[in-house]
Amino acid sequence: MGGDFAPKNVVCGALDAARESAGRLSVILVGPKQRIEEEVRAARGGAAEIVHAPDVIDMHDSPTAALRSKRDSSIAVGLRLHHEGKADAFISAGNTGAVMSASTLILGRIKGVSRPTIGAVVPTAKQPCFMVDAGANVDCRPQHLLEFAIMGAMYMSTMLGRTRPSVGLLNIGEEENKGNEAAQTAHGLLRKSTLNFVGNIEGRDVLKGDVDIVVCDGFAGNILLKFGESVPAFLKARFVDFAGKSLRNTLVALIARGGLRSVLKELDYQEHGGVPLLGVNGVSIIGHGGSTAKAIKNMVFRAEEMVQRGVNTMIQNAMMEYHG
Amino acid sequence: MGGDFAPKNVVCGALDAARESAGRLSVILVGPKQRIEEEVRAARGGAAEIVHAPDVIDMHDSPTAALRSKRDSSIAVGLRLHHEGKADAFISAGNTGAVMSASTLILGRIKGVSRPTIGAVVPTAKQPCFMVDAGANVDCRPQHLLEFAIMGAMYMSTMLGRTRPSVGLLNIGEEENKGNEAAQTAHGLLRKSTLNFVGNIEGRDVLKGDVDIVVCDGFAGNILLKFGESVPAFLKARFVDFAGKSLRNTLVALIARGGLRSVLKELDYQEHGGVPLLGVNGVSIIGHGGSTAKAIKNMVFRAEEMVQRGVNTMIQNAMMEYHG
Repeated sequence: MGGDFAPKNVVCGALDAARESAGRLSVILVGPKQRIEEEVRAARGGAAEIVHAPDVIDMHDSPTAALRSKRDSSIAVGLRLHHEGKADAFISAGNTGAVMSASTLILGRIKGVSRPTIGAVVPTAKQPCFMVDAGANVDCRPQHLLEFAIMGAMYMSTMLGRTRPSVGLLNIGEEENKGNEAAQTAHGLLRKSTLNFVGNIEGRDVLKGDVDIVVCDGFAGNILLKFGESVPAFLKARFVDFAGKSLRNTLVALIARGGLRSVLKELDYQEHGGVPLLGVNGVSIIGHGGSTAKAIKNMVFRAEEMVQRGVNTMIQNAMMEYHG
Repeated sequence: MGGDFAPKNVVCGALDAARESAGRLSVILVGPKQRIEEEVRAARGGAAEIVHAPDVIDMHDSPTAALRSKRDSSIAVGLRLHHEGKADAFISAGNTGAVMSASTLILGRIKGVSRPTIGAVVPTAKQPCFMVDAGANVDCRPQHLLEFAIMGAMYMSTMLGRTRPSVGLLNIGEEENKGNEAAQTAHGLLRKSTLNFVGNIEGRDVLKGDVDIVVCDGFAGNILLKFGESVPAFLKARFVDFAGKSLRNTLVALIARGGLRSVLKELDYQEHGGVPLLGVNGVSIIGHGGSTAKAIKNMVFRAEEMVQRGVNTMIQNAMMEYHG
């Protein structure tokens, strides 16, 4: 029931994933049974088990209050299925705070992890990088930033095959004494760690793609990511203005439209299939509220990959190594 | 002597401003006398007084240490001229931290201002907005954020004629309980103030242009602004990739190039002429390290406007009103 277009997009995307997997994946749809059945019928089939969850947590609910009062939300029921081993992973396009809190409560944290983190794959001029934290933790201690870096490095090596991925600390200057107190201390912790830490990077360096992992607190990370998401719409609006200025411009714009679309597509989060919550005992992926069916489908495939590649085992080992 | 192309760009931009003003403005160039004289000759004239300042603070100097050891830098000498009333304003494309610290030390703070702030004009889909703080203050208390909002509002009403400008608090969600501790408390202070506070805005809202002033700490603000600055280069690189993919794409790209350039130009900081340091007893404008002569010229004109429109008197009155 999560997201602006639920349950339609969620049902369609999940069924598409099951169909494309040709029997490799089976999908359990969790939500108010009747609503979900209607959507499955409207989507013309696809086999999916439905598990009833009558309560709905919406985008404006306070996560902790909603988890207490709505014990049978699709979020809680789905995560319990995962925790009990009846599902191998959980995905949702619902209330981010509620999915995070419920995942941490129901699945528990991986030993040694103080705070689970959300990481986002960000397109760059080279290969994509991974930004942790993307909005889960707003007031971070230096130790948290170090743990985000460790979890991000494990994700990038396991999922994207980056050997010894490089880590940059998002900051407002290159020098180690730059930035707020948390960043200054985290710089030292990262420097002393066994990670491939390359130092501070600035806002202007993210899109250059020189580092594999961008570490930051979830406040700055979330603001930057959402700003980035808004750039395509801004440029399209400017382009429409440009096109309206003269007949010549209109013609140029008509010809250029496809090119611009192809370039801006790379900034489109829908392609990437949600953001994983790292540090919990399980696979929990959170989708954008505006997720299309395609985004949901990609989330299912990403969840499958996270299970198969054993990201959590890698994180667990790294945390054990770190804590000695 | 500030910036990557000093003193050439600074000298040329300043002389251009004096020339375009047709006698309205006179420019004092501060720096190592011989170097400056050479640049003035190379620029073929323009009348400017030169004041000798032998020391040079570079981009990698620690601001406080440099101000102590290099007492006759162009930054310190220029600001002393302004403080003594021999100049009406000061501009520099030098070490941001050094200009900020020296401005605060030499000019002093406006009564009631805890921390001077740097504000940046940001293009949006509608009219430009003003982001405070743009990087001067990284660890901010809620009270600081409120003061940034007041100074930003005075700047926007005086300089851009916005009556009762709207203020948004940059945050990671709309609800008042969202964000880090500083943002949550600042939300309450802004709500209680006499400012036209419209609530939280998210990273994706900045470019929409629905608010006149975006308030944030300098850590998030600086990261977002520098990220935004890097978008044109990123898109140009993607466009070159696109153009190389086929002959058809190459032709499309050739035709579209002018359109893209015109759209991206709006994101170009060079047009805006530096960022003002607000809250000091004087006019101090800080330019980008990569400032072109055009950017320097625009900084001179902005400084003139700030003096003539009396931005500081407005800030002083607003702070007095706020503190009762």
